[in-house]
Amino acid sequence: MHIVHVFISVKEEYILEFREATIENAQRSLAESGIVRFDVLQQQDEPSEFMLEEIYISSDDQLKHRETEHFKKWKEAIAQMIAKPYTFKKYNNIHPDMIMK
Amino acid sequence: MHIVHVFISVKEEYILEFREATIENAQRSLAESGIVRFDVLQQQDEPSEFMLEEIYISSDDQLKHRETEHFKKWKEAIAQMIAKPYTFKKYNNIHPDMIMK
Repeated sequence: MHIVHVFISVKEEYILEFREATIENAQRSLAESGIVRFDVLQQQDEPSEFMLEEIYISSDDQLKHRETEHFKKWKEAIAQMIAKPYTFKKYNNIHPDMIMK
Repeated sequence: MHIVHVFISVKEEYILEFREATIENAQRSLAESGIVRFDVLQQQDEPSEFMLEEIYISSDDQLKHRETEHFKKWKEAIAQMIAKPYTFKKYNNIHPDMIMK
């Protein structure tokens, strides 16, 4: 599996709008055949800090995701909502071996 | 849901041992009634960096986890394997609403 964690700082006045846009993107992304998980999380002690856990079957599936209309729409929509460029880390799963949709 | 992300830097010579001990802890933790996910991930470009994604039904379930024999055994076993104290972040799930075992 190819696991991407994205860390996003959102301007406080855009938190609700960011949540809406990102939930829509998560739902559409989960319909892609190469994506098994697309969780949207909000930090408990810092509500302007979000993280997305995106689990792809392979790194190619991440490239395909970045070509979808819903990803491009989301990226454009959130551009003005974020406080700084987002960062990410990529992981392999050690346990469990397989992560299913 | 109560989601805890734990970030652990492991001394290089202990990577394999850490993986073994942590897989065992993950398997036993998943048998707890209050835990729905216990993923063990290894960073692709920094193999000594691990993260655990622990998803509890409630914050009380995290406290119960910390009282289990398998958690105490794991914590003691890895004490010498880690390069520095581990850190963590706590999250709420925005999407999906429910995360099932």
